[in-house]
Amino acid sequence: MSTGLMRAAVMRNWNLEITEVPIPTPLPHQILARVRACGICGSDLHMLSHGAEMRAQQALLAAQDAAHLGPHNSASGTEAQVSTAFDPAAPTVMGHELCCEVVELGSKDNSASLGLAVGDVVVSYPVACDLPSDLRTMHTVGYSNSYPGGYGEYVVLDAARSLAVPAGTPVELAALTEPLAVGIHAVAKSGITQGEGALVLGLGPVGLACVAALKAQGIGPVIGSDYSPTRRGLGAHLGCDEVVDPAVQHPMELWGRVGGTRPLVIFEAVGIPGMIDQAMRMAPRHSRILVVGVCMPQDHLHPMVGIGKELTLQFALGYSSTEFAQALRWIADAVVDLEPMITDKVTIQQIPSAFEALSDPERQAKILVIPT
Amino acid sequence: MSTGLMRAAVMRNWNLEITEVPIPTPLPHQILARVRACGICGSDLHMLSHGAEMRAQQALLAAQDAAHLGPHNSASGTEAQVSTAFDPAAPTVMGHELCCEVVELGSKDNSASLGLAVGDVVVSYPVACDLPSDLRTMHTVGYSNSYPGGYGEYVVLDAARSLAVPAGTPVELAALTEPLAVGIHAVAKSGITQGEGALVLGLGPVGLACVAALKAQGIGPVIGSDYSPTRRGLGAHLGCDEVVDPAVQHPMELWGRVGGTRPLVIFEAVGIPGMIDQAMRMAPRHSRILVVGVCMPQDHLHPMVGIGKELTLQFALGYSSTEFAQALRWIADAVVDLEPMITDKVTIQQIPSAFEALSDPERQAKILVIPT
Repeated sequence: MSTGLMRAAVMRNWNLEITEVPIPTPLPHQILARVRACGICGSDLHMLSHGAEMRAQQALLAAQDAAHLGPHNSASGTEAQVSTAFDPAAPTVMGHELCCEVVELGSKDNSASLGLAVGDVVVSYPVACDLPSDLRTMHTVGYSNSYPGGYGEYVVLDAARSLAVPAGTPVELAALTEPLAVGIHAVAKSGITQGEGALVLGLGPVGLACVAALKAQGIGPVIGSDYSPTRRGLGAHLGCDEVVDPAVQHPMELWGRVGGTRPLVIFEAVGIPGMIDQAMRMAPRHSRILVVGVCMPQDHLHPMVGIGKELTLQFALGYSSTEFAQALRWIADAVVDLEPMITDKVTIQQIPSAFEALSDPERQAKILVIPT
Repeated sequence: MSTGLMRAAVMRNWNLEITEVPIPTPLPHQILARVRACGICGSDLHMLSHGAEMRAQQALLAAQDAAHLGPHNSASGTEAQVSTAFDPAAPTVMGHELCCEVVELGSKDNSASLGLAVGDVVVSYPVACDLPSDLRTMHTVGYSNSYPGGYGEYVVLDAARSLAVPAGTPVELAALTEPLAVGIHAVAKSGITQGEGALVLGLGPVGLACVAALKAQGIGPVIGSDYSPTRRGLGAHLGCDEVVDPAVQHPMELWGRVGGTRPLVIFEAVGIPGMIDQAMRMAPRHSRILVVGVCMPQDHLHPMVGIGKELTLQFALGYSSTEFAQALRWIADAVVDLEPMITDKVTIQQIPSAFEALSDPERQAKILVIPT
């Protein structure tokens, strides 16, 4: 099976095309799995539309730093650079919010698959290594020329990074493990505790995952802010105590009414230029701002506002394997109900139009690709 | 005595002029004190040269916020706005790094002066209230039309905010209590602990105070970075384990050699546009950046750098009364020796030229005004 071709949405030179690519071959410590559901992530939209300029900017920063540091000591090497280390001129199949079914083990020796068996439904921390004990051979599944992601029919995953989905959990919900983990990590990173409240700016999938993670831990009040009534509705469903349309009411006016004098943590989950500055200006004194929205271009801020209020800006990225496992547990145990987040399901053929649809926040939150 | 005139460097319409102003009159809970020494603070230089544009910018931010929040609920009200609430067209005597001698008690009733007596040498948390129990009547000494600061001969201070300087402590060193408190607060705010190291960007008075506070707590290695050899010399004297000229060697190259793999906290004590971005770019993953340098204009940053490395930006302002008292104790007990920081002493008459001299970091660090 792993010598044939598969259907996939292939990115090459920042264009998306439905075509056929080789089915990848698992190494002994890996599994071959059939994609059952894969969420379309905002990062993939960013990558397709801003990938070239993002790389140009990172190259510029790296070159400036290298001028001081020498090529072997670049201090600007970021996770983002590592995770996007693919050749844009060669085919890449994106998609890292995966739920799959094991179809082949990389080794006849079952121990190499760590108990996984053909037919198991799994989710996987989307990292794969050519050599199991060597992180220098690491790839991000979905941002690699050699490890296609879930916008195709098959993927190769590290067995050690794959978790069996408990029986009875729908594959569509299991595919939301990865975005929920992002919210769990952001909430953990913020250090928010009982007795503090939260304001979530932006109720896209990242903001909604923060809301779900906050409410699963009993934190409140949680206010969600978004211009889109659809997204405010999703925020309310996922547990926001109040939602606000910032075009109608300033979020801090609402916070003043429902939050009282308790400390506030602001989650910036919009990720467009100007949002950090806006969050800093609305933040009460001594509050924390958790930046989880990915803003690619250069941005601005007023340091005096931060200084005058002694604010903390905490940037968050990704999640740990523990947080990933917790996300799966919460979904399987119905601690959170993310089903309303899924606003559409598409085939591989429909991926390009799904990318377009996602640019309109009014219509969509999370679109799942169901390859077959 | 408190009905006569005194000599002072008076700021009016963002100009400095040596002239005479009335000696202020203490209220019953206050004291009249003769200035023995007063440090010239970088904030005063900022105020004189950028005060007008700073106010214009703050007014713009406040107006934008008020459009959402209404006039009674401005979330942008910052310490800086409070502390600079003076009429620039009326005379202001700046100077808040004071060491003074009590010459008159506001009330014949000694209890109102809380044990202070005429002849006592004091330092004072530079805040005074018209009504002792009402912070709405608060003024910052030195940024108020009614509470002249130490660039004149006499000041009025709240007795409750004034601390007697232990006998034997030179007034010149006691006058450094305030700037040292800024360093103590920044270090406390950073949460730095034993086992972590520090890189201090900028070895002006604020950076040097951070170095002193770090070393007084046994934290190291501490690297100081400054283009000026004079300031690097001061950094080494105040306890930097290594100093670096960033024009010759990248600070992170030096850190890699002396810091090894221990966690790093970067103290940004330069306060010019671009420094936050630069600190973020050089910061190792998961490190903290403590912003203590006051940058007045709008600044820029690359959020992706912060996200990719999961950085924390912590902004710091001022100090608590406890930190202020600790600074005096450290100076009196010679835990720190700040004497080398004092690069010049001037009369009131010489204040305008001292302001000019301070614009050249090569020649000066802390200049003290000795009024008589």
